[in-house]
Amino acid sequence: MSRFFSSKYSGLVPYTPGEQPQDMRYIKLNTNESPFPPSEKARKYSAEALEKLQLYPDPECTRLREKLAEILGVEPCEILPTNGSDEILNFAFMAFGDEAHPAIFPDITYGFYTVYAELNGVPYREIPLKDDFTIDLSDYIGANKTIFIANPNAPTGIALKRCDIEKILESNPDNVVVIDEAYVDFGNESCVPLIHKYPNLLVTQTFSKSRSMAGARLGFGVACPELIRDLNTVKYSTNPYNINGMTMAAGIGALEDEEYTRANCRMIIKNREYTSTELKNLGFVMTDSGTNFVFAKHPDIDGGKLYSELKSRGILVRHFDKEKISEYNRITIGTHEQMEAFINAVREILGQ
Amino acid sequence: MSRFFSSKYSGLVPYTPGEQPQDMRYIKLNTNESPFPPSEKARKYSAEALEKLQLYPDPECTRLREKLAEILGVEPCEILPTNGSDEILNFAFMAFGDEAHPAIFPDITYGFYTVYAELNGVPYREIPLKDDFTIDLSDYIGANKTIFIANPNAPTGIALKRCDIEKILESNPDNVVVIDEAYVDFGNESCVPLIHKYPNLLVTQTFSKSRSMAGARLGFGVACPELIRDLNTVKYSTNPYNINGMTMAAGIGALEDEEYTRANCRMIIKNREYTSTELKNLGFVMTDSGTNFVFAKHPDIDGGKLYSELKSRGILVRHFDKEKISEYNRITIGTHEQMEAFINAVREILGQ
Repeated sequence: MSRFFSSKYSGLVPYTPGEQPQDMRYIKLNTNESPFPPSEKARKYSAEALEKLQLYPDPECTRLREKLAEILGVEPCEILPTNGSDEILNFAFMAFGDEAHPAIFPDITYGFYTVYAELNGVPYREIPLKDDFTIDLSDYIGANKTIFIANPNAPTGIALKRCDIEKILESNPDNVVVIDEAYVDFGNESCVPLIHKYPNLLVTQTFSKSRSMAGARLGFGVACPELIRDLNTVKYSTNPYNINGMTMAAGIGALEDEEYTRANCRMIIKNREYTSTELKNLGFVMTDSGTNFVFAKHPDIDGGKLYSELKSRGILVRHFDKEKISEYNRITIGTHEQMEAFINAVREILGQ
Repeated sequence: MSRFFSSKYSGLVPYTPGEQPQDMRYIKLNTNESPFPPSEKARKYSAEALEKLQLYPDPECTRLREKLAEILGVEPCEILPTNGSDEILNFAFMAFGDEAHPAIFPDITYGFYTVYAELNGVPYREIPLKDDFTIDLSDYIGANKTIFIANPNAPTGIALKRCDIEKILESNPDNVVVIDEAYVDFGNESCVPLIHKYPNLLVTQTFSKSRSMAGARLGFGVACPELIRDLNTVKYSTNPYNINGMTMAAGIGALEDEEYTRANCRMIIKNREYTSTELKNLGFVMTDSGTNFVFAKHPDIDGGKLYSELKSRGILVRHFDKEKISEYNRITIGTHEQMEAFINAVREILGQ
């Protein structure tokens, strides 16, 4: 920290992203990317956008919002695209969190929530998950706080039912409830249809996982027009041209290839079932995942050790050196071939 | 504003970007874009990056920083790439502005400085330019404030000499001085070489203007490693993957085609000289521009009226409805053909 750095950030502990080796030597099962390439139309439209790269992109993302609205069954004015879903989450902490609106979220969840709370000076409390890593609904009902819930949750993979989320929404009418649906497409109920019923609901999603576009940085928020207007005030005070032209075009292309996305999600779910079955047969204890990863521990091997052993065999998974979950690893679901290689490596490590 | 919106932002007035019609029907001289396409290598590398769009980009932007360092004559650890130079400017307000470090900048300059100051709760004062729109150096020498100076300034186009900026740097040793060099490539001295002499200097630049990449959103900051570390703390607490893969690749390509950039800049300077001469012959009063735009007023026609008359003829320029400069228009320098069309339209409007 230099002597010029503002003291308001002196305690800030930045988020640590997963390893991103750029040499492609690894089977990368550590950052929940899709093993499939982006859709053909995404690549085509993005390449076309290169031809007018000298012009600023549309700051309103009009065509992208129209296409998203059509697919989600909402209006374009109910959507705000952002530079990854990280940006919409930060905007939500900025817009809806302050001394009068402290935040709560699970103690085991997406690591960025605490960082955003700290960054924006939002008082927050991390609420312990139950021992089985599920959320205790009673902690959130009538909490009268700004609530952030990843659904399904990460890195546990466990989802709340939509009817349970409705109970949270109904009982916190004076606070915004943010449902972070980064992993919703892998077999879960989305809360998007609820935005017309609850003016305090913000749903966030991303193109990084199901749409194979982690490299493009595209996320979005869906909420009633009033909340989107607030978030736009923050956007136009931060970075009006937050989405570059190539990403915007790729997003439109991916949405026109929606069947490709759905087919990829079905394949990931199938590979997840294969991986879960194999890991259970090898003696792993696992949560019930609704995502493109599984969260697993083995009674005979330490989580950090399994991570290292896999890495030395060319397979990257994600290990969190954090209380309560240090025995676990989070393993992204890739292609069937990748998961077979992973299972074989695990078998070798366990000597089975 | 919804009832959920944090009161800390209740007074926030977002930045208004220039018009970005997406239909290409206009001769667009309103947002200081380049009239030239991005370099061939920029497009080639970016198209190649589409092939691994499913993977997160390198959060450290290693190759891009290495290439930039080589061209700028600094070290990779002295550079932070951002999502447009807007992002690095916001990071600078976040990192180096607070109650103990209030900000100062000219009253007529890039409109985002006031927005970032408001957004981040940084006390600020706008210091009037002199009547000829130049900066009064004595306002900044020994000011003991965090200083933001666009050099050349926008929308006036006027540059301070590097030796004058050194006086500001030397006399404000306890505050960061940010030199925003968005327009430096059009014939000005850069302050980048000064970063090794002044630990309080942050220089920001962009790929939007001279490198024809406004659509890609790529900017960067250059400073001593300690300041870059602080800015990285902010980045990794905001958006670790702030630069998407296609933009990063395009940036590397553009830097490998540096001669193309230099040739385009020379052409813009030539077209600027042509435009200035013609406008002066038509009776315009102008500042001495070191940028890819000119700033001009005519004694016989109101600035807003000239803007509208040009728009109705299919030519967009930028008019700021702001005290002191409302008589002026800011006119981006395009191709020679575009500037001829512009001059002909002006001649017709003036009846000359």
